[in-house]
Amino acid sequence: MSRFFTERLSGLTPFTPGEQPRDMQYIKLNTNESPFPPSPAVVEAAKDEAGRLQLYSDPACRELTDKLASLYGVSPDQVILTNGSDEVLNFAFMAFADEEHPLVFPDITYGFYPVFAELNRIPYTEIPLKEDFSVDYRDYLNLGGKTVVIANPNAPTGLCLTLREVEEIVKTNPDGVVIIDEAYVDFGAESAVSLVDKYENLLVTQTFSKSRSLAGARLGFGIGSKALISDLHTVRYSTNPYNVNRMTAAAGYAALCDNDYYMDNCRAVMENRAYTTEALRELGFEVLPSLTNFVFAKSDHIGGEALYAELKRRGILVRHFSKASITDYNRITIGTREQMETFISTVKTILEELS
Amino acid sequence: MSRFFTERLSGLTPFTPGEQPRDMQYIKLNTNESPFPPSPAVVEAAKDEAGRLQLYSDPACRELTDKLASLYGVSPDQVILTNGSDEVLNFAFMAFADEEHPLVFPDITYGFYPVFAELNRIPYTEIPLKEDFSVDYRDYLNLGGKTVVIANPNAPTGLCLTLREVEEIVKTNPDGVVIIDEAYVDFGAESAVSLVDKYENLLVTQTFSKSRSLAGARLGFGIGSKALISDLHTVRYSTNPYNVNRMTAAAGYAALCDNDYYMDNCRAVMENRAYTTEALRELGFEVLPSLTNFVFAKSDHIGGEALYAELKRRGILVRHFSKASITDYNRITIGTREQMETFISTVKTILEELS
Repeated sequence: MSRFFTERLSGLTPFTPGEQPRDMQYIKLNTNESPFPPSPAVVEAAKDEAGRLQLYSDPACRELTDKLASLYGVSPDQVILTNGSDEVLNFAFMAFADEEHPLVFPDITYGFYPVFAELNRIPYTEIPLKEDFSVDYRDYLNLGGKTVVIANPNAPTGLCLTLREVEEIVKTNPDGVVIIDEAYVDFGAESAVSLVDKYENLLVTQTFSKSRSLAGARLGFGIGSKALISDLHTVRYSTNPYNVNRMTAAAGYAALCDNDYYMDNCRAVMENRAYTTEALRELGFEVLPSLTNFVFAKSDHIGGEALYAELKRRGILVRHFSKASITDYNRITIGTREQMETFISTVKTILEELS
Repeated sequence: MSRFFTERLSGLTPFTPGEQPRDMQYIKLNTNESPFPPSPAVVEAAKDEAGRLQLYSDPACRELTDKLASLYGVSPDQVILTNGSDEVLNFAFMAFADEEHPLVFPDITYGFYPVFAELNRIPYTEIPLKEDFSVDYRDYLNLGGKTVVIANPNAPTGLCLTLREVEEIVKTNPDGVVIIDEAYVDFGAESAVSLVDKYENLLVTQTFSKSRSLAGARLGFGIGSKALISDLHTVRYSTNPYNVNRMTAAAGYAALCDNDYYMDNCRAVMENRAYTTEALRELGFEVLPSLTNFVFAKSDHIGGEALYAELKRRGILVRHFSKASITDYNRITIGTREQMETFISTVKTILEELS
């Protein structure tokens, strides 16, 4: 740290991304990436655009915005595109939360929420999950002007609120913005986008990183009422108007044109998730019922960190968190069927060697 | 504006990007883009990377960081890469300026400085340029802990401080960070990168947007002491660790490998700048002596806004600013020789039609 670092930021604990070791080729089940490459049309679109990189991108991202709006059944001025969904979340925290409207989110959820809160000096309350790791939606009713953020499905648990429960939260907090972070919604959960015309205080965020195989392109979006989206654009134009580069905008547009390919991939992930869940349970694991592209699982025979280390030694990366209440678990991204079979047989070997 | 927009941001005046009308094909001399496309290797690199977009980028951007460090003669931990140089500027304002260390910058300069200052609630002082539109470096000496930001060369004037003057500013402000924004340095000015090992309070920022034909890819960087760069990484990891996407990182790397191509392009721009400056002066314009890829010029025969409008009507875009002290001027990006000849002959026609 330099002696010039401002006092208010010098205490920041930054977000820790999943490890990306390069000492060998791993089966990467640690960062919730898609195991499927982008469709050929996406690669072509990005390449075409690469020849025009001397020109700035369109700050309004018109084609992509229109396409996305049409696919999601909203108007273009209800959409904002960002450099990953992290950026729209940060913008939303900046725009809608402050000392008067502090943040509320679950104590076990996406690790970036407290980081963004601290970065922006916004007070926040973390509400404990229930014993079964689910979010109790009743904890989030009638909070009187607070800003609620819920990852739905939640990470790293994979558990989900119903649309009716989400609506209850939105309806009973008319004086606070409710942000529903749907990074994983395409793997079987119900989206709250259907509610944005009904509630002016609802912002839904999603990403192209998981279901649309574009983690490395950085493309996220928010959908909400026109007034909320307009505020987010004000923040965007005060921060980085060209936040979405030309190649990513073109790739995102092409991905939406190939929507069937990506939704087929999501179904494959859901099938592999069912296979993995069942196989882990047969090996004695407790596996939370997931509606995402990962499962959260623990074994009574081996600790979470020990399993993580044993898997890594054998060329498989999963994600382990040191937080006490979840340290017995690992978060395992769902890959291809072949990857998951290798994962399961490796876990089996590890357990056998233990006994 | 929604009723949820926080009080502190609701008064923001966002940055206004240069217009990008789509009603017809313009000769774009309004946003300081390069008239030259990226090199073929850059297009290939971006395309190769597009096939791997399902994977997150490396948050450390190791290859690109190492290559850049080696080209600029610094160590990799003296380099930070960002989503355009706007992002490193915003990070630097967040990290090194606050109520105790307010900002100081010229009153006519890059329009994003006051926007970032207001976004981050940092008090700032704007120091008037001299009558000839140059920055008087003596105004920035011994400011006692304030944070200085100077675009060098400055925009939209194109004028430049000498390296000795920059060093005087850095040396006499040991308790404040001095940020030298060198977005346009590759068109003939002297870089302050040579001073970063000597002064721990110096941060130099640059961009791939202009000299390296990557405006649409969003790639900027900062070079400074290890301690300053480490603070900026803390901010980056608390904001958007994956800020530079895979395709852009690959394109940037390939661009550095093709450095001769880009430096040749810069020389062509400098030649076209000399041609444009001389031709405008022959038409009676006052043209500031520019060391950038644009010129700032005014005519006694036609107002700045009128000339802008006449040019636009004829298919040529230049940049006009409404600020009173510079409203007589236009900022004209230097394009290809052919574009500048068309520009000059169009200006000639406009002036002839007036008389």
